[in-house]
Amino acid sequence: MPTLVMKFGGTSVANLDRIRRAAKRIGVEVAKGYDVIVIVSAMAGKTNELVGWVDEISPLYDAREYDAVVSSGENVTAGLMALTLQEMDVPARSWQGWQVPLLTNGAHSSARIQEIPIANLNRKFEQGMKVAVVAGFQGLSPEGRITTLGRGGSDTTAVAFAAAFGAERCDIYTDVDGVYTADPRICSKARKLDRISFEEMLELASLGAKVLQTRSVELAMRYKVKLRVLSSFEEQSDTAGTLVVDEEEIMESNVVSGVAHSRDEAKMTAVSVADRPGIAAIIFTALSDAGVNVDMIVQNISDEGRTDMTFSCPTDQVGRAEKALLAVKDSGALNFSELVADTDVCKVSVVGIGMRSQSGVAAKMFKVLSDEGINIKVITTSEIKISVLVDRKYMELAVQALHDAFELERVA
Amino acid sequence: MPTLVMKFGGTSVANLDRIRRAAKRIGVEVAKGYDVIVIVSAMAGKTNELVGWVDEISPLYDAREYDAVVSSGENVTAGLMALTLQEMDVPARSWQGWQVPLLTNGAHSSARIQEIPIANLNRKFEQGMKVAVVAGFQGLSPEGRITTLGRGGSDTTAVAFAAAFGAERCDIYTDVDGVYTADPRICSKARKLDRISFEEMLELASLGAKVLQTRSVELAMRYKVKLRVLSSFEEQSDTAGTLVVDEEEIMESNVVSGVAHSRDEAKMTAVSVADRPGIAAIIFTALSDAGVNVDMIVQNISDEGRTDMTFSCPTDQVGRAEKALLAVKDSGALNFSELVADTDVCKVSVVGIGMRSQSGVAAKMFKVLSDEGINIKVITTSEIKISVLVDRKYMELAVQALHDAFELERVA
Repeated sequence: MPTLVMKFGGTSVANLDRIRRAAKRIGVEVAKGYDVIVIVSAMAGKTNELVGWVDEISPLYDAREYDAVVSSGENVTAGLMALTLQEMDVPARSWQGWQVPLLTNGAHSSARIQEIPIANLNRKFEQGMKVAVVAGFQGLSPEGRITTLGRGGSDTTAVAFAAAFGAERCDIYTDVDGVYTADPRICSKARKLDRISFEEMLELASLGAKVLQTRSVELAMRYKVKLRVLSSFEEQSDTAGTLVVDEEEIMESNVVSGVAHSRDEAKMTAVSVADRPGIAAIIFTALSDAGVNVDMIVQNISDEGRTDMTFSCPTDQVGRAEKALLAVKDSGALNFSELVADTDVCKVSVVGIGMRSQSGVAAKMFKVLSDEGINIKVITTSEIKISVLVDRKYMELAVQALHDAFELERVA
Repeated sequence: MPTLVMKFGGTSVANLDRIRRAAKRIGVEVAKGYDVIVIVSAMAGKTNELVGWVDEISPLYDAREYDAVVSSGENVTAGLMALTLQEMDVPARSWQGWQVPLLTNGAHSSARIQEIPIANLNRKFEQGMKVAVVAGFQGLSPEGRITTLGRGGSDTTAVAFAAAFGAERCDIYTDVDGVYTADPRICSKARKLDRISFEEMLELASLGAKVLQTRSVELAMRYKVKLRVLSSFEEQSDTAGTLVVDEEEIMESNVVSGVAHSRDEAKMTAVSVADRPGIAAIIFTALSDAGVNVDMIVQNISDEGRTDMTFSCPTDQVGRAEKALLAVKDSGALNFSELVADTDVCKVSVVGIGMRSQSGVAAKMFKVLSDEGINIKVITTSEIKISVLVDRKYMELAVQALHDAFELERVA
């Protein structure tokens, strides 16, 4: 039998009605002849309740106990989903992580999947089970304790199962109906993409389009798992959602596939640091040790042996970054005249695998922004992405102007 | 190190404050030098929420999935308790049933414990763990699935651990401060017992004094586990609560230890059934098949080959009992002229191991009730118990009169 993996997030299983709705979708795939592996999240809100309790007991908790507690929400959903399917005469059973087993390393709360032996599930499929409902987000450590995979870990669970079982496809049911050329809330012309490449999806995921966890896309790309993102609240159809596939499976595409934005960015500049080898390492090691997620980095041209070092990070990490850099300054390892934080910026990016073969995208992007009177503060590029920091008040304008200029409302 | 088992019920771990309170008590025992095995229930209300969901999905649910769902509440408490203990610098970790493992048979939802291998916990105790927090109520089936032990199963879990680890004592923390000579809510003179024998506790448990699950008392009796029932809401002391011990450990006692009552009893009579061998078997097999919990049985003297068969059962099972008996009548296997149900009765019992060696208890009981003008409808006796059915309106009066007559307010 061909295998299909279907993953339902927290809002898709938030109550018994939604579980029933999801079960009906599963039933449709079973009727088509698939052996189905269903990955479920905890009912919406449940994991936050558990995390809240742990945080209240202990700010510096034992991650092994944290994992044992917070993984329980998925177990509940798995059992309830199996019961709902049985009620519809679909032979189903629930599997907790340790029962599969989904083997991980011992890095509690952010464990990495090491292996998913397929024998246990396959034996049950051979005995007539049609649906294995697997509790997402959790695994078993080498010490026999429960691990969790970190936030969004159920997406990763789903892709890992699809890879292990050679599934025909991995359908991620969520509360949005696919991946868009831009956020429809700020760009009315945004269009749902039928297909997108793994590489583009990765850039979009890391740019703040929170449809899929970055890690799950990486895993899907590595194991060539065909991913589909679709809404559990829309009518079912074979062309619903967005397929995330290998680049070769996308016949023709726009040069630019989408415009992404990220609102809560801050730009920080250490003014007049010594321009000599090792200084950048000192700065970014200190920031990394302090848990600051540095995104863009720009170093200005040197002037009399001094330079300015500029970087961006999430707005809520500015305080931490300042503290870390002032500490390094106090230690004498680093000197700067001033630390300037601009917390009123945002990041706007254009993404597209077409950029690899077509030049002039950057020039066009800068001209579009310039024509709108938007000043660019920082620029970074990758092979398939160009990102700029601009004042936050221009965010909507920038996204809309770029969407128009690259004609993203038109199907390629 | 000597081992102590401490069990905390749902109200004793209903929120983080109560978990903290319980953890403090555990800390006191650890400070005395015990290795402690803590058995926890789900936070009050959690299991009912889970059971409600399962019932809503499917009235005839798969018990294996039911068990997987409803066992999750205990896992949460176990993790939270371990974290709370760690926060107090007590080396603790949580154990789910499958991790111990607590091995059961495959009778889902009412599984029997088969074995508790002690190696895993003992290895951790040797490595410095002071408290093993075990999720109660759950185990592992031979097929590797989660089982539950039935309602009150956490008491049974606690006693089984105490037996397996040769614990010095098994303390059951609950919301009452011990076993009383009568229910203090209806008998103001009721006195807390410092000690009671297993046999008496068993009779009281089955008579409706819901302090301990019958099964856990049976298990404690078989393995000579010293049980203590005490309140988690009272101040801690070594003489708190009631010790349930072997008969030999009770030096001297009243002839009667307690007066128990059970409110929701019904008396049913099948009038004029044939008085021949096999008729009782037909009646009580039919009732048993219908899930009616028959308690007392009385057969009247035969009159011209016909007799009346009277029995008692819980009030809410009367309808089921009537349906079952009418069905047998319709099938022709049984005949009776009439089925009379009296749903306005209650059961009052006196219990005491002293009855074994002292006669006249029954006579005294009947005289006391007669003096109060209370008519006895049905009588049953065991070696250490006499029970009567009386009209419900006399319940408080009967309990108080018997408590006075047997001088239960006085310490033996």
